[in-house]
Amino acid sequence: MKVKIVLKVLGIVLFWEAALMVPSLLISIIDNSYEIMAFIIAIAATALAGFLLSRIKLVKPEMRKREGYAAVALSWLVMSLFGALPFYLSGCIPSYIDALFETVSGFTTTGSSIVPNVEIMPRGLLFWRSFTHWIGGMGVLVFTMALVPTIGGHPVFLMRAESPGPSPGKLVPKIGESSKILYIIYTVMTAILVISLILAGMPVFNSFIYAFGTAGTGGFAMDNLSVGAYNNPWIEWIIAIGMFSFGINFALYYFLIKKDFKSIFKNEEFRLYCFYVVFGIFLVLSNILFYFNNNFEALRHSVFTVFSMVTTTGYSVVDFNLWPMFSKSVLLTLMIFGACAGSTGGGVKSVRILVLIKTLYYEIKHTIHPKSVQRIKVDGKALDDDTLRSILIFFFSYIFIIIISVIIVSLDNFDFMSSFSAVIATVSNIGPGFEVVGPMGNYADFSYLSKIIFIADMILGRLEIMPVIALFSPVIWKRN
Amino acid sequence: MKVKIVLKVLGIVLFWEAALMVPSLLISIIDNSYEIMAFIIAIAATALAGFLLSRIKLVKPEMRKREGYAAVALSWLVMSLFGALPFYLSGCIPSYIDALFETVSGFTTTGSSIVPNVEIMPRGLLFWRSFTHWIGGMGVLVFTMALVPTIGGHPVFLMRAESPGPSPGKLVPKIGESSKILYIIYTVMTAILVISLILAGMPVFNSFIYAFGTAGTGGFAMDNLSVGAYNNPWIEWIIAIGMFSFGINFALYYFLIKKDFKSIFKNEEFRLYCFYVVFGIFLVLSNILFYFNNNFEALRHSVFTVFSMVTTTGYSVVDFNLWPMFSKSVLLTLMIFGACAGSTGGGVKSVRILVLIKTLYYEIKHTIHPKSVQRIKVDGKALDDDTLRSILIFFFSYIFIIIISVIIVSLDNFDFMSSFSAVIATVSNIGPGFEVVGPMGNYADFSYLSKIIFIADMILGRLEIMPVIALFSPVIWKRN
Repeated sequence: MKVKIVLKVLGIVLFWEAALMVPSLLISIIDNSYEIMAFIIAIAATALAGFLLSRIKLVKPEMRKREGYAAVALSWLVMSLFGALPFYLSGCIPSYIDALFETVSGFTTTGSSIVPNVEIMPRGLLFWRSFTHWIGGMGVLVFTMALVPTIGGHPVFLMRAESPGPSPGKLVPKIGESSKILYIIYTVMTAILVISLILAGMPVFNSFIYAFGTAGTGGFAMDNLSVGAYNNPWIEWIIAIGMFSFGINFALYYFLIKKDFKSIFKNEEFRLYCFYVVFGIFLVLSNILFYFNNNFEALRHSVFTVFSMVTTTGYSVVDFNLWPMFSKSVLLTLMIFGACAGSTGGGVKSVRILVLIKTLYYEIKHTIHPKSVQRIKVDGKALDDDTLRSILIFFFSYIFIIIISVIIVSLDNFDFMSSFSAVIATVSNIGPGFEVVGPMGNYADFSYLSKIIFIADMILGRLEIMPVIALFSPVIWKRN
Repeated sequence: MKVKIVLKVLGIVLFWEAALMVPSLLISIIDNSYEIMAFIIAIAATALAGFLLSRIKLVKPEMRKREGYAAVALSWLVMSLFGALPFYLSGCIPSYIDALFETVSGFTTTGSSIVPNVEIMPRGLLFWRSFTHWIGGMGVLVFTMALVPTIGGHPVFLMRAESPGPSPGKLVPKIGESSKILYIIYTVMTAILVISLILAGMPVFNSFIYAFGTAGTGGFAMDNLSVGAYNNPWIEWIIAIGMFSFGINFALYYFLIKKDFKSIFKNEEFRLYCFYVVFGIFLVLSNILFYFNNNFEALRHSVFTVFSMVTTTGYSVVDFNLWPMFSKSVLLTLMIFGACAGSTGGGVKSVRILVLIKTLYYEIKHTIHPKSVQRIKVDGKALDDDTLRSILIFFFSYIFIIIISVIIVSLDNFDFMSSFSAVIATVSNIGPGFEVVGPMGNYADFSYLSKIIFIADMILGRLEIMPVIALFSPVIWKRN
């Protein structure tokens, strides 16, 4: 591997990260709060590291697949290591592992927290914490590379490694252009969300915080009761619809702008996503109806919670931990299925579930009629063997990672539901799980060993496993 | 599909089943117990149904793949429907669904029970209950077909559908011969086990019961405390070694007889099985050491429990439900991994885990070096695409079945560990799970709906999913 090119990419990413910390510093300065110094040091350190690394001179700047993978995996790690500094240096989160957990949880749009009381956190840190969701949602790397075209090669490898889902969201032939279009859609949608929340009566600062959490489908709140704190049905509906919308493949919004409604309607992944979301709402609603005096209230809670879980956002209005086991199983399943590829949501992704169902169907046919050979098609296009195989492999590594993580985390001796759902919640970038890590609980009581496992799981989940595993493979480090 | 040929096979199988009930009837007659009439009616009904169906005349008796699948899936169902009669007719198990649950649990070598107090069950029924384990362990269909060669076609389809693991255990070119060799090995090993238990001080009748449960890796006991009731370390070691031995691919015993030690040592599945068994014992032992006064006792309990779980037998000496979460997670993982293909054990099977690990390794290599094309090899032989794909598909359907079952079973509102481990325990043909269905609990308190799901899961698990799914596929029922 060409280490220099990877280091240079890391440098550029860090330089950008330093810039992205500035708004949070400004809020701290306005509030004249205790974390000003922490932000200044963090920005200086990040900018300096970025400056030094980006000065590396490249003789033949060509990026191959392996450099792309390494650059993505390491960028996310290094971004988190530096992004944790404001929390740690300010003393707001006294342990560096905890600060790192919180930052990784932010960038990966997981939304799991180790902060028992977020309401005492200063606004500058709150802003940075939620802003990491927004940055992480779309992935910072492709955007950066689109702006810095000095490094040659194939940025499609970067995009493939960083964007959620099995195939990159190439809208127009040029990757840089696609990336810009996606970011414009993302920004406009976030702006609409902020304005809607303000109109519904939420304070301006709070609207930004919840909009970042919704847009990145992250779930960091600024109230201990999460969205439930506002006790405002309008806000709940806005955030619910927001979560659903950010769980849709962004390419569909591009089609919407181009008035290509046929492509939207014919998109099989979108249809499957809508199907299981509606089905999930139906199941949960029929199960919890008798808990509420008001049917409309039960509907609102079902919709909100299903949207929150399926998009892996993790916002809560009620403590669904107290709901019956049936609803919890449905929610856990939706968590694992996840939202659409090419959205900011986590989980296995709807398109992979689609391919699995189709594969299963064809396999049954093939078992009975061994001579019939049919290719699996999605949206009318035949799936190539490589994509199919990578989906299968994704599934296995996902399961292996869950098994190994649960075994290690169970050393902390919490009940099974807590350990199991905590692992699922981190590796699928959801946030809250059940029991100890339920919507009213948090991850503070786990051991440092478990927290390190969760940190690894969150990054593995966000980058969809392969780039991270590749990083540990000796093949990638071979010189040639 | 040619329905007639399938019905004729069902007839032959039922006829055999009636004969296999006779020893239990004899024990009832010796004991002059209340279930004599129930056995006589059950045997008469089974024999009559068998007689009528086996009289069907076939014009062109040729069995194809689809008939093979249908014959296997339906045989297991019909065998269980008739096998449940003695329990139900005697009034020992008053509900037919419960009686069916117990019988399916027997034939599929699951060992889950709905009987709260087995010690009051008469010996004739106890014998039949445990004998179903022994019959189900090796599969009755291939054996029957080997003895009745009047039906032409390819009995390899039957063998493939009935024998555990991705490839049938063909030892010699003729299927019938292979089947006989396997049954001789099975019988001799069971006899050795019975004699060892008698020598260790277990009563003769009890030795048969526990030998059947061990040989079929089923786990039905005749004491409420299972093997723990004897409080005899010798008996515990004999059963532990027995469980381990019946979890090994029977082909290896054939190699042993032929003094082909090289094939045994080079068998990759066997090596992986030994590796994770030893590793599992090490992890559990180090975790529970401080629970026992005596290190040797801790070792015995660890070995026994790991062997019991990994072979999916389910016998217990201590209530491992009380062990720390870490041990439980390790045991749950071993449960899912399971024993070797071609043994009587359940679970995913060691060879599938082997293929998954290898696939993952090659995929990482392929992702980095897209041009490298390498075939996955097991025991030096390249895996063909069909076997590989069927393993992948097995895994997905396994996961889908688990998800759907957990959702339905959670309607009973037990805790997650109970619902989840009950589903895993039935679909992997293990027996006990944790919490409510732990080694000291049973399945009696679940609703009938859940019990029907468990019955379906046990059959799906024993027949490794595909034949049962194929049965519900419209393709198989097409006339041609």
